[in-house]
Amino acid sequence: MDGDDFRTIWLKPGDESVVQIIDQRLLPHEYVIADLTTWQDGVTAIADMYVRGAPLIGATAAWSLYLAARTGGKAEFDTTAEALLASRPTAVNLRWAIDRVRARVASLTDEAELTHAIRADAEAICDEDVEISLAIGRHGLELLRDIAERKQGVVNVLTHCNAGALATINWGTATAPVYLAHAEGIDVHVWVDETRPRNQGSQLTAWELGERGVPHTLIVDNAGGHLMQHGEVDIVITGTDRTTRCGDVANKIGTYLKALAARDNDIPFYVALPSTTIDWSVCNGVADIPIEERDPREVSHIRGAIGGDVVEVATTPESTPISNFAFDVTPARLVTGLITERGVCEASEAGLTSLFPEFA
Amino acid sequence: MDGDDFRTIWLKPGDESVVQIIDQRLLPHEYVIADLTTWQDGVTAIADMYVRGAPLIGATAAWSLYLAARTGGKAEFDTTAEALLASRPTAVNLRWAIDRVRARVASLTDEAELTHAIRADAEAICDEDVEISLAIGRHGLELLRDIAERKQGVVNVLTHCNAGALATINWGTATAPVYLAHAEGIDVHVWVDETRPRNQGSQLTAWELGERGVPHTLIVDNAGGHLMQHGEVDIVITGTDRTTRCGDVANKIGTYLKALAARDNDIPFYVALPSTTIDWSVCNGVADIPIEERDPREVSHIRGAIGGDVVEVATTPESTPISNFAFDVTPARLVTGLITERGVCEASEAGLTSLFPEFA
Repeated sequence: MDGDDFRTIWLKPGDESVVQIIDQRLLPHEYVIADLTTWQDGVTAIADMYVRGAPLIGATAAWSLYLAARTGGKAEFDTTAEALLASRPTAVNLRWAIDRVRARVASLTDEAELTHAIRADAEAICDEDVEISLAIGRHGLELLRDIAERKQGVVNVLTHCNAGALATINWGTATAPVYLAHAEGIDVHVWVDETRPRNQGSQLTAWELGERGVPHTLIVDNAGGHLMQHGEVDIVITGTDRTTRCGDVANKIGTYLKALAARDNDIPFYVALPSTTIDWSVCNGVADIPIEERDPREVSHIRGAIGGDVVEVATTPESTPISNFAFDVTPARLVTGLITERGVCEASEAGLTSLFPEFA
Repeated sequence: MDGDDFRTIWLKPGDESVVQIIDQRLLPHEYVIADLTTWQDGVTAIADMYVRGAPLIGATAAWSLYLAARTGGKAEFDTTAEALLASRPTAVNLRWAIDRVRARVASLTDEAELTHAIRADAEAICDEDVEISLAIGRHGLELLRDIAERKQGVVNVLTHCNAGALATINWGTATAPVYLAHAEGIDVHVWVDETRPRNQGSQLTAWELGERGVPHTLIVDNAGGHLMQHGEVDIVITGTDRTTRCGDVANKIGTYLKALAARDNDIPFYVALPSTTIDWSVCNGVADIPIEERDPREVSHIRGAIGGDVVEVATTPESTPISNFAFDVTPARLVTGLITERGVCEASEAGLTSLFPEFA
């Protein structure tokens, strides 16, 4: 998966009826390409987390609309849009991608024209996402360079969940600065939060950092505070599934706890995001962002390898009641800055509109 | 395991050469009694976490000294004391129990007398621990009663790790107030942190609360902050492995993050402890308490049930480097109060010496 050509979603070479993705549920034990041949496959891929990460969810939605239009025309397109919107309630890129495609094809009724236009837009969304990740990477790189120069030693980044290449089309959001820093020879090391219950840290972030040769160490989600108390973390960078106009950040459950620890230890806490992740209609994230509750089985069961097999085991007493919120909201007051494709800004309405005046 | 007669360690009925424990590594999937027949068995039981929890570690140390003296007299006793001290560096009850037994038998040289005296003291340590847990329970119960009266609804307690009956001889420290509240009809509900990497929450606390009929819900360690932001937690109560004279608290890794979230949301954060857990020789816990690092395999592998079998599976890429600190330190400034067998006090030297003037 190394390098410029890596993609997390693509049209199957030689067969434009099939969209292909990596089935991320199976990593790191198995690397399996999954075919999406119907829009329902796309909804399942998003809801059941074959794909995850705000930007990749958006791209998968666009490609699902392509599959819908290809076989069902405008009627199927509208049905699909509604089904996609219901598949993950917290990620705002889902709505963004659907609204974008909808607007571009609003005037088209001919099925072939419609399909062609959606395909072009889905491809554009993916290409633009790669450029956005690289721009985020360049802006975040400045922060890592500053630490490297000041410290004259290894730059320790802590990240939560996977806001990596696997969460986008390539390069990632939170990881893009790390990949660019590593490429230019900065001595960077990443503390990877395991990220229960889905283990996106141990199963995805650790895997992709390993594939790309970036030094890293896996820790349980409980460990970050201790490391910060002992000077082992220089900067925290996470992604986000939805950022409000006022700078509140919804991200993987547990992000808020790391932001609190960073603040308590005077460590900068940054959030990397494409502007497509900003929800300009919401200010107070804690009050107004819906937080998805997922299947308790994500907590009670875990996939793992034993010998050559991959199995799912139960880790809790069978009768134990379980609650499984997928995200939490980190208030803007705990966020040192937002790293966007247009630069780094304060986590506030003033900060965001200084970079995105079209939303002021 | 319900009721007054439950014990976590005992001399085998009819065979005073064997000490018996519950092999807590196998819960909740299997309930297995393990025999300790040599002092080395005792060291292994502590180091490999057949038993864990500060009070139970202390009791197991005392019983290991009994096994040593029984077969090897004074010489073996001294060897054992050193091996025990090295087995878990953070728990202070280990040293307390060894020092106590040592002092009681200092004048004895006859092997039979020595063995008899150590046995009597190990039994006393266990009996006293039950009384201490009940006293902690009564003092903590007042806090829960106050919340129940003020709120006129369910009292939501969040706890981290297992400071339950399984961590002591019976009743627990953090759980003792909960068991007494439940017994007197207070509508109490416990949010149980999973507690990675050893899953003492999902595997031990959830199990014992279930066995004793106390309403509870398992959550991942990442979830507590979100619940606190949304008014779902009324009080946090944890145990501790070592409390400093100044009120800093070493407890299972991740406790510090919950204390930060409690403070950020104005939720009381209490720590329940027998006074044997206080290290009067240390003030600054972050600087001066040694934090045990354990086998990375605790993070990369997990035990679970599949069909009728219990297996261990790998959940991370094989080559991933892992760091595994077992404890962190919560500074006294984040602790609302300490619940001891003599009452509740401020987490400070003044608070502790008001209850324990003999250490002033």
